[in-house]
Amino acid sequence: MKIIDIIEKKKNSEELSEEEIKYFIDGYTKNDITDYQAAALVMAICINGMTEKEIVYLTKAMAYSGDVLDFKDIADNTVDKHSTGGIGDKITLILSPIIASLGVSIAKMSGRGLGITGGTIDKLQSIPGYRTDITIEEFKNNVKEHGISLIGQSLNLVPADKKLYALRDSIGCTNSIPLIASSIMSKKIAAGAEHIILDVTCGSGAFMRNKKDAIIISKIMKKIGDNSGKDVMCILTNMNEPVGYSIGNSLEVVEAIKALKGEMADDVKEIILTFGAFILKMAGKGEDLIKNKDKIMEVIQNGKAYEKFKELVVAQNGDVSYIENPEKFEKAPIIIPVLSEETGYVSSLNAELIGKASVLLGAGREKKEDDIDKKVGIVLCKKVGDQLSKGDIIAYVHASNETKANETIQMIKSAYKYSKKPVRKTRVILEIL
Amino acid sequence: MKIIDIIEKKKNSEELSEEEIKYFIDGYTKNDITDYQAAALVMAICINGMTEKEIVYLTKAMAYSGDVLDFKDIADNTVDKHSTGGIGDKITLILSPIIASLGVSIAKMSGRGLGITGGTIDKLQSIPGYRTDITIEEFKNNVKEHGISLIGQSLNLVPADKKLYALRDSIGCTNSIPLIASSIMSKKIAAGAEHIILDVTCGSGAFMRNKKDAIIISKIMKKIGDNSGKDVMCILTNMNEPVGYSIGNSLEVVEAIKALKGEMADDVKEIILTFGAFILKMAGKGEDLIKNKDKIMEVIQNGKAYEKFKELVVAQNGDVSYIENPEKFEKAPIIIPVLSEETGYVSSLNAELIGKASVLLGAGREKKEDDIDKKVGIVLCKKVGDQLSKGDIIAYVHASNETKANETIQMIKSAYKYSKKPVRKTRVILEIL
Repeated sequence: MKIIDIIEKKKNSEELSEEEIKYFIDGYTKNDITDYQAAALVMAICINGMTEKEIVYLTKAMAYSGDVLDFKDIADNTVDKHSTGGIGDKITLILSPIIASLGVSIAKMSGRGLGITGGTIDKLQSIPGYRTDITIEEFKNNVKEHGISLIGQSLNLVPADKKLYALRDSIGCTNSIPLIASSIMSKKIAAGAEHIILDVTCGSGAFMRNKKDAIIISKIMKKIGDNSGKDVMCILTNMNEPVGYSIGNSLEVVEAIKALKGEMADDVKEIILTFGAFILKMAGKGEDLIKNKDKIMEVIQNGKAYEKFKELVVAQNGDVSYIENPEKFEKAPIIIPVLSEETGYVSSLNAELIGKASVLLGAGREKKEDDIDKKVGIVLCKKVGDQLSKGDIIAYVHASNETKANETIQMIKSAYKYSKKPVRKTRVILEIL
Repeated sequence: MKIIDIIEKKKNSEELSEEEIKYFIDGYTKNDITDYQAAALVMAICINGMTEKEIVYLTKAMAYSGDVLDFKDIADNTVDKHSTGGIGDKITLILSPIIASLGVSIAKMSGRGLGITGGTIDKLQSIPGYRTDITIEEFKNNVKEHGISLIGQSLNLVPADKKLYALRDSIGCTNSIPLIASSIMSKKIAAGAEHIILDVTCGSGAFMRNKKDAIIISKIMKKIGDNSGKDVMCILTNMNEPVGYSIGNSLEVVEAIKALKGEMADDVKEIILTFGAFILKMAGKGEDLIKNKDKIMEVIQNGKAYEKFKELVVAQNGDVSYIENPEKFEKAPIIIPVLSEETGYVSSLNAELIGKASVLLGAGREKKEDDIDKKVGIVLCKKVGDQLSKGDIIAYVHASNETKANETIQMIKSAYKYSKKPVRKTRVILEIL
């Protein structure tokens, strides 16, 4: 087999065989295939697409390019909830302890933020002492002992994806549906959970800009699951406006702590209840979604979910006093309110612009190597449908200096659009597949 | 300007601007743009194509990526004849001294053979002592003094093409019309001749497999010429069967010497007369093509063309006794006849198979670094239209050992197809543009 023949085949829009795709992934992982040959093939895939069969083969080849985890000896019915990325998306922080407190094991590896989308690992690292880089033994032990562990992707999982992801980023091939689907699903297969529930975000703040693309990719990911013996469910959520009120790392941890104590934004609550109810069902903890939602509200109200979060933080070496007293989180030196210039109702709130503003403040990364500032970010006070008067505070900017604060204020103002007439709240759950 | 934006634009089939194309070529030549980014862009060009405008911009950017020659101070009306490559194509060796002996300056840089197609430089190097790597001063001086010089591409001409050509070869992107057209024309522009006459080969032994593609690329190359102040003419020739009778380096030199003395295969004669007549017209040496053909026959018959070839060889330090006595060329140790297994007429003679057989014998290169054996090759005895009986000799294999000879014999046999009924000779000149 020769890589040049494989490249030419895809260039001519022919279907690649399982052996050809495996030959490429194995060779590229071992550096036998050069970056420029991989770049040519990736571009041909990007332009000519892939059949469902090819995507399944690609995903499997990637999943098995490194270590593959297995939790069967320590827990049954493990569930992995994954989001395709968004702005202000702190759902994993809230949902994981809720589910764990209901007896479903959570063994999750999360990513870092890149571009305008945030990452759970960066958020957890804003808790002083929290270790996201524990060993695989400590990880498994925490799952066994506490029913929960949230760590970073420090293990040798899916090395092919690490190389391909960096390559795609440097040759303008990030937005290819076959490559996004195989990247997500290969990581989920290697991470070992039996059930996978995917939050497929769509809108201005997400990779998938519209519902049509989100449905296509969801169907492909379910197909990959069918072919890999994994139970996969996709829920499409709205990412035209940010999730909840805060955007920024420690700011989102603080919102998550409040949520675990019952104080939740409407959209966050809807996502938590919907995903939570399905996760419990997938894990065999109850067929009735309404009853499942009641169980979730119960562990929030009786404090069990909050206690589980503290247990997680302690187990990962984090300083739990920050959770018990969120006032301890260091604040940004500059906190400035942003005022409304109109009277009426918020008709839209552009997630992409808010994401860009948060990156400008230092809460996100433009390049993988960038450092982030855990303290800075944006706290929204008004969301779509909210009524307001000129001069009302629509948001607070938490900045490291005044220049950045002022630049950001303009971006936030332009992210808000208004209407004189009442506006309906945006639906959060768009489709369940 | 960012290379990633240029790649994404071409990925989305958008037209690139002159500045964007120049940015890519300059950056890649200076190694500021990586091979994998260039590979991604080249693949996108290969799949999505380029507009005429883009091809003109690409050619110009490549042509000026290194030195650009100018012969205005030493000769007027310089002509550059170039072939897009074929099997047994020794036309440059024969035509150049003919034209030079008629007072038109020939200052030509030729290429090496790659794949199944041969290269003039390899053929010239089979003359002991012949230097293809003289300096630019010696080159210009020979043109001034003798009206002819044939050398290799040793100068810093079109460095962008050298890099892009090697890259295309390793990522399966050799057969892209915009990339072939810009590669040829950038070298012709940099080589400095005023008039360019292109032998656009088409058939099984050429890059362009059919007449349709050959016409498309010819029109593009003429357009590039219009936009670069060069007078460009394209003549499509048949490359379904090899040109002349010999394939292999010293074997082709011997055939060229015979041709210069008047002993010419029918197809070689037709190409020489057609191209020669147009070259004389382009160079202002006579409008009447018939009269031009007579002039060519005259310099062959009176020995002036042959004398000019000897003058060229001496000027380039070659041992002229080999030209005067071709028997001196060292022969391959094994020379075996190939016999016909049928009685009738040759209906086709597959140039690609003959080319592959010659590479197997060692007369050509599979990779740029490969060494070639100057002595080996194939001498055909029968061509399309020739009558023959079972047991007649159809060809001779000149091989370095018996194993290779035997393998090649089978390939040569399968290259010949027969008919019981008489077959017309193939037309050599297919179209003049």
